[in-house]
Amino acid sequence: MPFTYNRTVRFQDTDAAGVVYFANVLAVCHEAYEESLAASGINLKAFFSNREAALPVIHATVDFYRPMFAGDRLIIQLTPKQIAGDEFEIAYQVFSGEVAGRSAAKALTKHVCIDAATRTRKQLSEDLIQWLRQFES
Amino acid sequence: MPFTYNRTVRFQDTDAAGVVYFANVLAVCHEAYEESLAASGINLKAFFSNREAALPVIHATVDFYRPMFAGDRLIIQLTPKQIAGDEFEIAYQVFSGEVAGRSAAKALTKHVCIDAATRTRKQLSEDLIQWLRQFES
Amino acid sequence: MPFTYNRTVRFQDTDAAGVVYFANVLAVCHEAYEESLAASGINLKAFFSNREAALPVIHATVDFYRPMFAGDRLIIQLTPKQIAGDEFEIAYQVFSGEVAGRSAAKALTKHVCIDAATRTRKQLSEDLIQWLRQFES
Amino acid sequence: MPFTYNRTVRFQDTDAAGVVYFANVLAVCHEAYEESLAASGINLKAFFSNREAALPVIHATVDFYRPMFAGDRLIIQLTPKQIAGDEFEIAYQVFSGEVAGRSAAKALTKHVCIDAATRTRKQLSEDLIQWLRQFES
Repeated sequence: MPFTYNRTVRFQDTDAAGVVYFANVLAVCHEAYEESLAASGINLKAFFSNREAALPVIHATVDFYRPMFAGDRLIIQLTPKQIAGDEFEIAYQVFSGEVAGRSAAKALTKHVCIDAATRTRKQLSEDLIQWLRQFES
Repeated sequence: MPFTYNRTVRFQDTDAAGVVYFANVLAVCHEAYEESLAASGINLKAFFSNREAALPVIHATVDFYRPMFAGDRLIIQLTPKQIAGDEFEIAYQVFSGEVAGRSAAKALTKHVCIDAATRTRKQLSEDLIQWLRQFES
Repeated sequence: MPFTYNRTVRFQDTDAAGVVYFANVLAVCHEAYEESLAASGINLKAFFSNREAALPVIHATVDFYRPMFAGDRLIIQLTPKQIAGDEFEIAYQVFSGEVAGRSAAKALTKHVCIDAATRTRKQLSEDLIQWLRQFES
Repeated sequence: MPFTYNRTVRFQDTDAAGVVYFANVLAVCHEAYEESLAASGINLKAFFSNREAALPVIHATVDFYRPMFAGDRLIIQLTPKQIAGDEFEIAYQVFSGEVAGRSAAKALTKHVCIDAATRTRKQLSEDLIQWLRQFES
């Protein structure tokens, strides 16, 4: 079942149009991914300083349906899916608490596992396979 | 008594040196300020879209004592203080959960209340005075 | 013919993996868009504070082919295309100066013209039509 | 003599109050610092991936005198000053092109030279001493 992340829209996330700057929605989705890793028992500090394995985003897409304002309470639902032994994608649905049920945005990120030093592909670790199993649909 | 805000360091907060980018610490402090307003009963959405009163930062300072890494659990203690009828400052202490007791950073922001349209000074609202009373030392 | 924007990767753009944080590539593309508007004679300050017309991004996608490092000199080629009377999209190719000819990333943003107050769709202004004509392929 | 950096305010730099988000002014100042290093002949990519020497900010302060809007053409004047064999500070004056002569903001950052691995202090490199000599007042 999907992982759920709660996040208040911060003043910093917005731009002069008064709503969340578009690229920041992807950053909020990445926060949800980070939080799901922690929820799965992964040590984030070790994860992000690991020179043997990195998981760069190779593709991202986002669609916006409703504006999000500073102070809005967002609920992000995240569903990962394994694509290959060294690749996975994550689907995100972003709901604004004020309009329950209708999503404000949808996004998708695709990640590949590489050796951070050589930048060559490598298999996903056991930890990540377990994270995938825990939250996939 | 001070307001306390918990915040995990996000991958986005860091830079290529592997630690939080210096200016982002001030943004995390501003998040704590936003959360304290909400905790005091202020509607953030109305607050940040209010054209009659804005509270721009006119001065900020920050000192760094220890590096903060992605995944670190931060605790930010915030103490506001009224300076004048149209002005207040906020002191922040940032602790990294892994090293309890010794702060990783200290910061201060000074805010002035203005009419957002004319950009002239005006008195702090009752809501803000109440927020000041609630969290001042 | 496409608009070309030069941009050095800043320390702030990077994350603890030592490369540009994925969502920041979209922000760099948006900068190229802003600069192309200015090159077309549009006053950016008036453009972004205009309450009668806003151009929110309703869709964005980005693919990453090569990592970008702090200090890298990027060249962004931007090509807009009108989709409807109230809609356009922009294709971006991001080259890293160190590896000329092979793009480091590709992106696309889709924008819709709305009345910023009512958030209903409206026709693109003459200024924008002229910008489209100037840089479309 | 001081180094001068030109920078247009980007939409991303602003917040829902319609002006530059306060902490982003410090990021713009850091950009000016990076550009001054490049102007002095330092290779930024090597500089920022150097594990033997890092120059973290240990203190920063900023004062705001006038709001800065998306599209504003900023001129940042930067003056470095050596404090010790392993420490320097940089003073910044930020002018908005639309109001020449009166600064929109002033800032200061203090940096210490450390070994990035052990995080112990070390002497500034010859390159940095030369950069200091070139732009100090």
